[in-house]
Amino acid sequence: MSVLQNIRVVLVNTAHPGNIGASARAMKNMGLNQIILVQPKDFPSGVAIGRAASATDILESAVVVDSLQEAVADCGLVICASARSRKIPWPMLDPQQTAQKVVEEMDYTKIALVFGREDSGLSNEELQLGHFHVQIPAEEKYSSLNLAAAVLVICYEIRKVASEKNTHTQGQDTELWDQEFATGDQVEHFYRHLEQVMIDIKFHDPSNPRQLMQRIRRLFGRIRLDVMELNILRGILTNIEQSMKRKKN
Amino acid sequence: MSVLQNIRVVLVNTAHPGNIGASARAMKNMGLNQIILVQPKDFPSGVAIGRAASATDILESAVVVDSLQEAVADCGLVICASARSRKIPWPMLDPQQTAQKVVEEMDYTKIALVFGREDSGLSNEELQLGHFHVQIPAEEKYSSLNLAAAVLVICYEIRKVASEKNTHTQGQDTELWDQEFATGDQVEHFYRHLEQVMIDIKFHDPSNPRQLMQRIRRLFGRIRLDVMELNILRGILTNIEQSMKRKKN
Repeated sequence: MSVLQNIRVVLVNTAHPGNIGASARAMKNMGLNQIILVQPKDFPSGVAIGRAASATDILESAVVVDSLQEAVADCGLVICASARSRKIPWPMLDPQQTAQKVVEEMDYTKIALVFGREDSGLSNEELQLGHFHVQIPAEEKYSSLNLAAAVLVICYEIRKVASEKNTHTQGQDTELWDQEFATGDQVEHFYRHLEQVMIDIKFHDPSNPRQLMQRIRRLFGRIRLDVMELNILRGILTNIEQSMKRKKN
Repeated sequence: MSVLQNIRVVLVNTAHPGNIGASARAMKNMGLNQIILVQPKDFPSGVAIGRAASATDILESAVVVDSLQEAVADCGLVICASARSRKIPWPMLDPQQTAQKVVEEMDYTKIALVFGREDSGLSNEELQLGHFHVQIPAEEKYSSLNLAAAVLVICYEIRKVASEKNTHTQGQDTELWDQEFATGDQVEHFYRHLEQVMIDIKFHDPSNPRQLMQRIRRLFGRIRLDVMELNILRGILTNIEQSMKRKKN
């Protein structure tokens, strides 16, 4: 996903260096690596490095500039995070729509994702530099996300949409499993074996079956038994039979 | 979205209290509010309070317990975060599938989302308490998310799916099961009962367990037993024991 290289995260006037570090880590987790800092209050900073964990390379290559205008000057698509609804309505996206737009355009143009101050966000003037605004849906009563949390949600959605574009998923379940799945025939043999044992131990009375076998079938039918599991279950049944015979003799 | 009340976040053995605070904030942003801490290394803590911002109410009502088993005892659905692929693959979900499953079931059962240690995640034994594992897709070269970041992604997806469900009010394929699902505690009792019977019938040698109990857990974890099924299985085990005793006398 090298095209994510065209996407930069711009943090405006960040107060807490820990948030810069945590944003860098979140970006790197999701495959982004370019950060531009507009007048950070405390940078470079050991706190930022600590919170970045293994994403210090992003901090080292961070560009510090004086204005948001400078940070987005070469970008064809600018999307600004905005917590509040503004006086002048602006085209709004949710994180997923943001990701779709970014992924659509990242092959052709440079893209800026802009995040404002921890306490007051972006000014109206700064917001007007964005083609779109993105709002992260959150609880009405407590909608204030941590800065790095906001960066993470947007980067996560971008990575998600970008990989959907890249992969044509097939039945992953089967691909990932370590054993072959049992055939219908094998499972039928198991049911018959289980029924016989349930009769032997006097749990099941075929003349008054209630819905027992039906429930058993629904139970095991819900999962796809693999061959190893089937062998375990058959083995248990066989040992029950043998234990009962041993006691008889 | 008051049904989100049925969802708890369980943090196991967290080392850094800041991560507990940041997790609480992320949860509150997304409408979750119940946290259970399994042997946190440093809690209560001023650092946790600082990072929680206005989500200190979640920290105040946090429950501290000694084991993961205790934390999930009354839960009908347990989903464990897992970064690594294991020797025995487990049913895996991505965050969105996790959210869909959680939202489908949150009206009917208590749900635990379990997150492990910052450095080493959850142990294999802990992972086996989950019906499903969830992995957050991330860059291969740098897939280690901060703990609170992982909590945020899952809670964000849950909120997203829950609000989609609320807007399309009548969920079409809300599959209504005719029975309540068994709780974690009930299923644990069943595992212990089954293990004892397997020992009695000489199918299982605890001094040479191979991976038997692990495979059994994976098998029944996949089914999500309902209460009636659990009673059937316990009944079978009891009758096996009685049959063996009868033969003895």
